[in-house]
Parts: sequence; structure tokens; C-alpha cells
Amino acid sequence: MKNRRSFLKKLAAGAAVAGLLPLSKNASAGEVQLKGALIHHVYFWLKEPNNEVHKKQLVKALNDLLKVETIKLSHIGFPAGTESRDVVDHSYSVSYMTMFEDQAGQDAYQVHPLHVKFVEENSHLWEKVVVYDSVDA
Amino acid sequence: MKNRRSFLKKLAAGAAVAGLLPLSKNASAGEVQLKGALIHHVYFWLKEPNNEVHKKQLVKALNDLLKVETIKLSHIGFPAGTESRDVVDHSYSVSYMTMFEDQAGQDAYQVHPLHVKFVEENSHLWEKVVVYDSVDA
Repeated sequence: MKNRRSFLKKLAAGAAVAGLLPLSKNASAGEVQLKGALIHHVYFWLKEPNNEVHKKQLVKALNDLLKVETIKLSHIGFPAGTESRDVVDHSYSVSYMTMFEDQAGQDAYQVHPLHVKFVEENSHLWEKVVVYDSVDA
Repeated sequence: MKNRRSFLKKLAAGAAVAGLLPLSKNASAGEVQLKGALIHHVYFWLKEPNNEVHKKQLVKALNDLLKVETIKLSHIGFPAGTESRDVVDHSYSVSYMTMFEDQAGQDAYQVHPLHVKFVEENSHLWEKVVVYDSVDA
């Protein structure tokens, strides 16, 4: 635990010094806060949520999509087994979180041939997509 | 651009060697993929979305909440000015993305005194909250 914290501190300090990564060290914890970021978070609801072949195809295609150069940080996920509360939506099939440095990076991604191909080849799998784009508060 | 990419490469390589951070280097890009992560992403809709005092209070309270030790990575945001498309929801007021190492970290956060205090002191500000919890696909 102590090792991890000191590693995160070094990581954040190094990033701040280099001025290369949108990280800043929270004063009170071993935590890294992303700054100068556009978070593009997509949730997919599959037409056949229990079809493992469809789920695998979508995850593989999303992994391939990470080759777009303007994506700087990402996470591909499934709903967690966290507590069922009114406000928690566990109903989606796949989560796709990507971080860009700015809106230009996200705009470039939208029209990138790999993204166009991804939609063409996989959009028949889902019945609903919700996207949230956020920039620094 | 080249400097940034090489910095990201070093960052990912260092993390992999140290085995301390849930990062892995995508083979084909200068991109960092989070692994071994639970992403807890919360979207708030304020009762008075144009009330800047309310918005400021919520953002400040969320920043204070980052002191919870099990939070490893975070981003606090507002809707980006990205293109209006059917699938993009720009209607929320504040986005709060946090990353934990596992479900235990998220569970501890839910009952943490700072989180309980945050809800008590600020829940009158919002009319709707949606939470998505995701673990590695």
C-alpha cells in the first residue's frame, strides 16, 4: 500500500515536471486527477445481451479501435457486481471509456477510418448506445 | 507529439515492471489501457442547472471527496462541446469519474464518512444521478 502510494506520487510528480501528461497530484491522497482531458464514455446495450459471441465480438472490435492515435487512456468493461441501488445502472452490456487530450482529438476519432469501420461492422449488435463527453470542470 | 508518446511508453513500461499500477501498453499506439480497475462514473443533473453557485458547490464538494484513499484516478467534468448526435447526452450538469482497484475499494468508498457527509450536504442540489460501475472486460 505504501509502495503503491509512493509510486503514484512519483508518477504524478514526474508527469507534472515533464508537463507531458494531464495528471495532477491531489494534495491529500495518493490519487491522480486527470486534467486537460476529454473523457468520452460510451455504454452499449446489446440486442442479445446473453449472446456471448456478440459480446466477444464487440469487445474485440473495441480493442482494435484503440489503435486510433488520439486515444491517450482507455478502459473496456462489463457491469461490476456492485450493490443494486436505484441510481446504479447495471443494465448495459459493455462500457468503453476513452480519454482524449482535447475536443480536436475526439473529433478526429469520430471520422477516423477505424471508427467508421467499427460502426459499419458492429452496429447491428446493439440496440442502444449512450455517450457522455466531459471536459475539465 | 513524439515526446509525449515516448513518455507514455516509459510510463506504461515502468508501471508494468513495478507491477504497481493497472496500466498496460496497447501494442499499436501510444495509448495506456487501464487494467485491474473498477471505473465508477457518476453523472449529476442539478435541480437548477443554470445556478452557478450550486454548480460550484458540487464541484468543490466532489474535489473534497477525492480524499477517500481508495480512489486511485479521477476526473471531474462538465459536458463537452462535442457534436450534437442522437446518442450523445449533453444534458447532465457534472460528471464524476473515479477509478478503484477493485470492488472492495468502491464498497469502502460508499460507506466512508467523507462520502456520507458529501451526500448529506449536497444531495438537495441534484434531481437525478446515474451511476455506471464497470470492471475489466
